[in-house]
Amino acid sequence: MIHTDILIIGAGPTGLFTVFEAGLLKLKCHLIDALPQPGGQCSELYPKKPIYDIPGLPEILAGDLTKNLLEQGKQFQPGFTLGERAETIEKQVDGSFVVTTNKGTQHQAPIVAIAGGLGSFEPRKPLIDTIGNFEDKGVAYFIKNPERYRNKRVVISGGGDSALDWSIFLADIASEVTLIHRRNEFRGALDSVERVQELKLLGKINVITPAEVTAIHGDNHVEAVTVTKDNQQTLLETDYFIPLFGLSPKLGPIGNWGLDIEKNAIKVNTLDYQTNIPGIYAIGDVNTYEGKLKLILCGFHEATLMCQSAYKRLHPNKKFVLKYTTVSGINGFDGSKKEAPKAVVKAIV
Amino acid sequence: MIHTDILIIGAGPTGLFTVFEAGLLKLKCHLIDALPQPGGQCSELYPKKPIYDIPGLPEILAGDLTKNLLEQGKQFQPGFTLGERAETIEKQVDGSFVVTTNKGTQHQAPIVAIAGGLGSFEPRKPLIDTIGNFEDKGVAYFIKNPERYRNKRVVISGGGDSALDWSIFLADIASEVTLIHRRNEFRGALDSVERVQELKLLGKINVITPAEVTAIHGDNHVEAVTVTKDNQQTLLETDYFIPLFGLSPKLGPIGNWGLDIEKNAIKVNTLDYQTNIPGIYAIGDVNTYEGKLKLILCGFHEATLMCQSAYKRLHPNKKFVLKYTTVSGINGFDGSKKEAPKAVVKAIV
Ligand SMILES: Cc1cc2nc3c(=O)[nH]c(=O)nc-3n(C[C@H](O)[C@H](O)[C@H](O)COP(=O)(O)OP(=O)(O)OC[C@H]3O[C@@H](n4cnc5c(N)ncnc54)[C@H](O)[C@@H]3O)c2cc1C
Ligand SMILES: Cc1cc2nc3c(=O)[nH]c(=O)nc-3n(C[C@H](O)[C@H](O)[C@H](O)COP(=O)(O)OP(=O)(O)OC[C@H]3O[C@@H](n4cnc5c(N)ncnc54)[C@H](O)[C@@H]3O)c2cc1C
Repeated sequence: MIHTDILIIGAGPTGLFTVFEAGLLKLKCHLIDALPQPGGQCSELYPKKPIYDIPGLPEILAGDLTKNLLEQGKQFQPGFTLGERAETIEKQVDGSFVVTTNKGTQHQAPIVAIAGGLGSFEPRKPLIDTIGNFEDKGVAYFIKNPERYRNKRVVISGGGDSALDWSIFLADIASEVTLIHRRNEFRGALDSVERVQELKLLGKINVITPAEVTAIHGDNHVEAVTVTKDNQQTLLETDYFIPLFGLSPKLGPIGNWGLDIEKNAIKVNTLDYQTNIPGIYAIGDVNTYEGKLKLILCGFHEATLMCQSAYKRLHPNKKFVLKYTTVSGINGFDGSKKEAPKAVVKAIV
Repeated sequence: MIHTDILIIGAGPTGLFTVFEAGLLKLKCHLIDALPQPGGQCSELYPKKPIYDIPGLPEILAGDLTKNLLEQGKQFQPGFTLGERAETIEKQVDGSFVVTTNKGTQHQAPIVAIAGGLGSFEPRKPLIDTIGNFEDKGVAYFIKNPERYRNKRVVISGGGDSALDWSIFLADIASEVTLIHRRNEFRGALDSVERVQELKLLGKINVITPAEVTAIHGDNHVEAVTVTKDNQQTLLETDYFIPLFGLSPKLGPIGNWGLDIEKNAIKVNTLDYQTNIPGIYAIGDVNTYEGKLKLILCGFHEATLMCQSAYKRLHPNKKFVLKYTTVSGINGFDGSKKEAPKAVVKAIV
């Protein structure tokens, strides 16, 4: 069982900034995310695109924003449970909550902050009956550890940035990369499309279009796939089959936690972004209130007010004092200290 | 008369970011500030100190944050009335407002956003009866244009960063710089204190401590000041006398505009940060509501929601559509366009 002060569901920009604001109040955080990496929509959907409306940052790539937020919070040593979906929540007799993931990992905390965005990102899967039997046995919808594919044969299917970028990346690692797409046209960043074209001409990526993988074969692990092109079926030997058809967010299990839901979002008050269940907050894209805007900068504000409220719940008798980071500095949980140079008082003689 | 869509009172971080959010909605802004430069507390009180809690910016000097915010909004071509205090507001028959400054400049807009922070920054003045007669006639509390002092004799008084930094700066411009402080000890950044010490030894700054300026002389302009040290009075000829004793914020005239005030701040709702007078909003440090935190990041959120509400007031029949900057780009009022590189759709052959 993992214990923490604030259990954050969702490691998107809102969840990541919560770590920082909680840390200022000496509260520890642990984050759960269904994706294998932090950053939410920013890292999953548009890491290489610029955002222009982060205040004080006239232009920043979504991937770099994620990096900065991780950097900003790292001295508060957040814990992560990645690649797992928060599935159930149970209130304990002491008032705390236990959240269990689809893989059975248990987390216990007095405060739960749902920063689940549009919901947990679930991969879109090809319509192959038996695919469930091969998951984690040669079929993968995410690439968590590219080294796993070293000197292996890999079939990737899909026509967007992920399929293009991973084909390029694995061309140097895998013994054989085949990219299969049901159209001739790929849709992605110009340089990715051009690079795949080059690697194809160099014989480093085998591109088959317009075609589809229609069956998977193997005993206990993928051994081959059937490729259907122009109504012709061919057997292609491979060690891995990686369909990268994009992700679709689903509010999912959180919808059944007894929270007030409106239009796929969780209703909160605008005082501290608490839900109808005391101790459970909802911040960022996942919440709704009158006038709600699904913007990153709004999630930052909501996370900040939420942490203050959580602090008051946990320490009902302490007097609230707002401290400026410039004035008080930052005391990391790892013993680090950041602070502004202090003014000196000195005679001039 | 200056006309605009949103008249912003206060050019601190909140006011500056409002320009950007309003611009996204094609609304023009004009800002009034009592200070000679934009940035509010950040540029006036701690420009060289780092802030650690701007989301996505693990560390940024307050002065650089101001620069970034100006940069972020500049394509929306805000107007500025600087060095003037908004004094009176009058509602017009067409529902718009006219705001007049202490120098008589008039501004007219259908929407007023008060982003006045802790209030307009007013200089602390030395207790010299006749000082009012010399204001703008050799006595200045701010240095707006250092060139004015070229080859002139200048007396600066004060013991903090402003007095130290301007003495250093003017040592190269003025013909004579005298720094007078009532204690022997100065309080400021280490390098400023050391630099003044050096310049003193080089004979480029004349330091007199512990001493005070106790009288000002001259017919139509400052010609000399009386310096009192150890109960001894000396006459010191000078062209300018610049007391830099710091600024103290005063809610000031805004307190009499008929707005609901609570503890020196303006009461607003948390839906759109509107005050009790429809069409007048209050955002940033100047407002108050249950759970209010006087933090820069909160002002950013408030400014954003406020602009959406202002847009609805101005265009009651238009349907609201939230646009992501990443997806829609930024169309500047100056014809500039920023946008994310679009995905290409291309066959790989
Ligand atoms: C193409 C595009 C462009 C955009 N451009 C902008 C822009 O310019 N400016 C702007 O402000 N916003 C923009 N946005 C929106 C912005 O990305 C979102 O507002 C932001 O990501 C919301 O952050 P969040 O942390 O609340 O949620 P998310 O980023 O959605 O993160 C939520 C995380 O929670 C996880 N999660 C959810 N449920 C569970 C569960 N049960 N178990 C485990 N994990 C779970 C998800 O996997 C996800 O990683 C854009 C969005 C897109 C798609
Ligand atoms: C030393 C120090 C350290 C700080 N550190 C942090 C930190 O680490 N993090 C953080 O988030 N915040 C910090 N703050 C607070 C932060 O600076 C404020 O929250 C922020 O400046 C508020 O922005 P604002 O735009 O609302 O108001 P302000 O910055 O106060 O700007 C308001 C402006 O309005 C003008 N004005 C007011 N009334 C009138 C009028 N009638 N006519 C004309 N002009 C008028 C004023 O002259 C002023 O320039 C710190 C503050 C100080 C003093």
